[in-house]
Amino acid sequence: MSNAKPKTAITPTRAENYPEWYQQVIDAADLAENSEVRGCMVIKPWGYRLWENVQRGLDDMFKATGHENAYFPLFIPVSLMEKEASHVEGFAKECAVVTHHRLEARKDDKGVTKLVPAGPLEEPLVVRPTSETIIGESFAKWVKSYRDLPLLINQWANVVRWEMRTRLFLRTAEFLWQEGHTAHATQAEAIEETMKMLGVYAEFAESWMAIPVIQGEKTAGERFPGAVQTWCIEAMMQDRKALQAGTSHFLGQNFAKGSNIKFLDENNQLVHAWTTSWGVSTRLIGAMIMTHADDDGMVMPPKLSPQHVAILPVTPKPEDRERVIASCRELKAQLEQQTFAGGRVRVIIDDRDMRGGEKKWHWVKKGVPVRVEVGARDLDQGTVAIGRRDVQLPKDQAFPQRAAFVEGIGAMLQSIHDNLFQRALAFRQEHTRTIDSKDEFYAYFTEPKADKPNSPTAIHGGFVLAHFNGDPKLEAKIKDDLKVTVRCIPRTAVRDPSDLDPGTCPFTGEPSKQRVVWAKSY
Amino acid sequence: MSNAKPKTAITPTRAENYPEWYQQVIDAADLAENSEVRGCMVIKPWGYRLWENVQRGLDDMFKATGHENAYFPLFIPVSLMEKEASHVEGFAKECAVVTHHRLEARKDDKGVTKLVPAGPLEEPLVVRPTSETIIGESFAKWVKSYRDLPLLINQWANVVRWEMRTRLFLRTAEFLWQEGHTAHATQAEAIEETMKMLGVYAEFAESWMAIPVIQGEKTAGERFPGAVQTWCIEAMMQDRKALQAGTSHFLGQNFAKGSNIKFLDENNQLVHAWTTSWGVSTRLIGAMIMTHADDDGMVMPPKLSPQHVAILPVTPKPEDRERVIASCRELKAQLEQQTFAGGRVRVIIDDRDMRGGEKKWHWVKKGVPVRVEVGARDLDQGTVAIGRRDVQLPKDQAFPQRAAFVEGIGAMLQSIHDNLFQRALAFRQEHTRTIDSKDEFYAYFTEPKADKPNSPTAIHGGFVLAHFNGDPKLEAKIKDDLKVTVRCIPRTAVRDPSDLDPGTCPFTGEPSKQRVVWAKSY
Repeated sequence: MSNAKPKTAITPTRAENYPEWYQQVIDAADLAENSEVRGCMVIKPWGYRLWENVQRGLDDMFKATGHENAYFPLFIPVSLMEKEASHVEGFAKECAVVTHHRLEARKDDKGVTKLVPAGPLEEPLVVRPTSETIIGESFAKWVKSYRDLPLLINQWANVVRWEMRTRLFLRTAEFLWQEGHTAHATQAEAIEETMKMLGVYAEFAESWMAIPVIQGEKTAGERFPGAVQTWCIEAMMQDRKALQAGTSHFLGQNFAKGSNIKFLDENNQLVHAWTTSWGVSTRLIGAMIMTHADDDGMVMPPKLSPQHVAILPVTPKPEDRERVIASCRELKAQLEQQTFAGGRVRVIIDDRDMRGGEKKWHWVKKGVPVRVEVGARDLDQGTVAIGRRDVQLPKDQAFPQRAAFVEGIGAMLQSIHDNLFQRALAFRQEHTRTIDSKDEFYAYFTEPKADKPNSPTAIHGGFVLAHFNGDPKLEAKIKDDLKVTVRCIPRTAVRDPSDLDPGTCPFTGEPSKQRVVWAKSY
Repeated sequence: MSNAKPKTAITPTRAENYPEWYQQVIDAADLAENSEVRGCMVIKPWGYRLWENVQRGLDDMFKATGHENAYFPLFIPVSLMEKEASHVEGFAKECAVVTHHRLEARKDDKGVTKLVPAGPLEEPLVVRPTSETIIGESFAKWVKSYRDLPLLINQWANVVRWEMRTRLFLRTAEFLWQEGHTAHATQAEAIEETMKMLGVYAEFAESWMAIPVIQGEKTAGERFPGAVQTWCIEAMMQDRKALQAGTSHFLGQNFAKGSNIKFLDENNQLVHAWTTSWGVSTRLIGAMIMTHADDDGMVMPPKLSPQHVAILPVTPKPEDRERVIASCRELKAQLEQQTFAGGRVRVIIDDRDMRGGEKKWHWVKKGVPVRVEVGARDLDQGTVAIGRRDVQLPKDQAFPQRAAFVEGIGAMLQSIHDNLFQRALAFRQEHTRTIDSKDEFYAYFTEPKADKPNSPTAIHGGFVLAHFNGDPKLEAKIKDDLKVTVRCIPRTAVRDPSDLDPGTCPFTGEPSKQRVVWAKSY
């Protein structure tokens, strides 16, 4: 790595080649890498710590809303998958199938010993792509009476979907996620749960990940296989495409019927339960990268960042080293006494023997919210030299008194969070249009904005609020023409209160209940 | 459930049928159950919360010793498994093999549509039975120079070993575990790491699970496939069999050579790294049950118990209900201000509409360390009625002043922990013999102790400290004769300092370096 300050730390920049920039940000921040196994990623310590913080934050919210964690089998017998027809159709095309339970050494044609599958299973097993069917088996045993309801369960697990084109975090064959599964006595309660968890996801996205999201319902074509309603949170990435960051499904009685989840109600009638499921995955890390990172690399949302502050001792003179390091340790201890987002401030000292510029860029690229340089002169003056990852600080704020910096660290981290959120929100507002004519709609999504094919400005359009008659065929046609789909039917106004008013579908002239959000998407 | 006080809550008792008692304890405490999938268990919320607490406790210890978590693929290409010969031999016989990546609907002979595997993979994938080989691939990429070492990684994951005879927690096809994997520049550092993590496991077993363990090395026959040395912690269950509760392996350069983990040392020579691996699993829950539970059900070690205190409002008169419940909530809040084992005291109020006896037995069987009954009279007198899960309290201790109880809860929980530990240690000491003759050895392990074949008294013997010449054939013969094996070569004295002195093998008359621990085992 060069010690000279690069123009940008990441090559290419977003404007030059957005997909490649994404890959390079992950690489430079040491978040994850591709493995030898097709489509499966290795989540490296810096990325996994971010995921652990996501888990901790969400898990606390799940527990606070009455959910308990449990664990269900990795494998699903094929016969169980068959029980819910549209579910099969949705997942059978892309799953890992276990057919044998042994390997045997055999010699091949050339006399080389190879391990080959042996011990065929009577019934093949699918590696779970999602657990509705296998969890349904347990629920059917656990639920006997209305007194057993609601049943509010969450699982943290790995799942496998055999994706053909994979990208780190966004779409991998194996990924980590949580899946909530609940059963209720009434339709109303199940719908209430569906919406409550949608709200939890939106709250987590905005208050923890600093990502503004639109809550809404999916159209039939984008619904979870087997669901009655699928609700989602949608975020705008820096290339103006939409990313679905979480879903909450009202499953009606479809899975309860497939799995035979029945209970005696208060009138002693045996009836089917109403179920929900909801999930978010390691995809959230992809969303954080594509919302906050810049041409210098990762920008961590402070509440989830593995470290809040990186202290970098500056010791060009060996004779200063000991007292500078000692002072850094003291500073670390002081900062760790401060609180932020319900926990202690997390601090790392990087005392590796490395040139200052190189070390600084290391932490810039990792996205740590605050950097502090401490040298001998700072000790004498009682100041520190600080850098914020989200903004370039003016000179009069970059060298605060040490005590004031320590005392203000929680507020500074909160202000970084707020700034990231506001920046993302402003970007989304800037690239969200209200459109009432088919021509304008088509032009917005096709108009060439740049000549570099992979730059975000070449990804035409953004979010469009337009009326829609709800016809799946029309939606399919627009997808075919423009690669644009309805991301959601928003439940609250996105730009203007009139978003939710009835109007006229610009494509057909037919009535429309409200505007929907159209976009290209991940 | 009967409301009358049963003689014991669990049928059968330990003395009547130990294996069935084990199953019934799990069932009565709602810890886990068998699933529809062969050998795979469902871990229910009360059992999973216990596992979460194990995870939290261990994870803190791993991080405190410099380890970082990461995540590696679920699948291992068969060709990677082939790289370490003895490793293949150890795991190929019992693994789940993925051979296809799709299911297709086809009609069978009777015209019924069935899902069948389609899309055969070019190379079969094994569902990880352990991750040395796949993690080795990453380590080979990450390690270039001695500056990259040591590399200290841990993974929390599910693994699959196709066991033919399974038992909840003790031996299941899929189980949850952590696996540490580290790489070092020198043999000495790798051995130091191996022993350090063995020590962490022993500390966790004794200080958190209240299970006394013997630390020692495995003989060649019991070594991890591919390891140079396998160290373990061994605990005695209430049927006097040994249970291996954790292992730490010094892998030498075997896996480094298989995976090509090389680095430039300080002399600029390209050399292989030295690696270790170490793991504990959901088996620990089986160990806790079989060490602490009794004929009334589960007994949770306090530091890991999902709840520390269950508050049971006693409200036979409806007019008292409101103020009793209010008082219980206040008590809960007071208790939650107290600390224990580095965290807050965990309290649950069970205000279900259920008869008092039934409710009490519910919490007895779940193993909650302390129960508190609060009724209207207690409110008037400022007292509470308490029950400890580990002992029957004498009358003069069962009705303390409420304030004193609250203030003393941390100490009471610690005293329950200490009591459980001391009880288990005394049991182990009572059933550990030093034996110097073959006849006595054989008699101890064959002498009939009871006529009920499944009672623990019918499981002959216990732990034996005897000398051993180290011959694997002799060990195999004794295993064949008695189902008894060397559990470990202890690193510290078990009963007496002379355990570690040289002596004479009672089976051969040949020299022996020290006494080893013999036992039947899980």
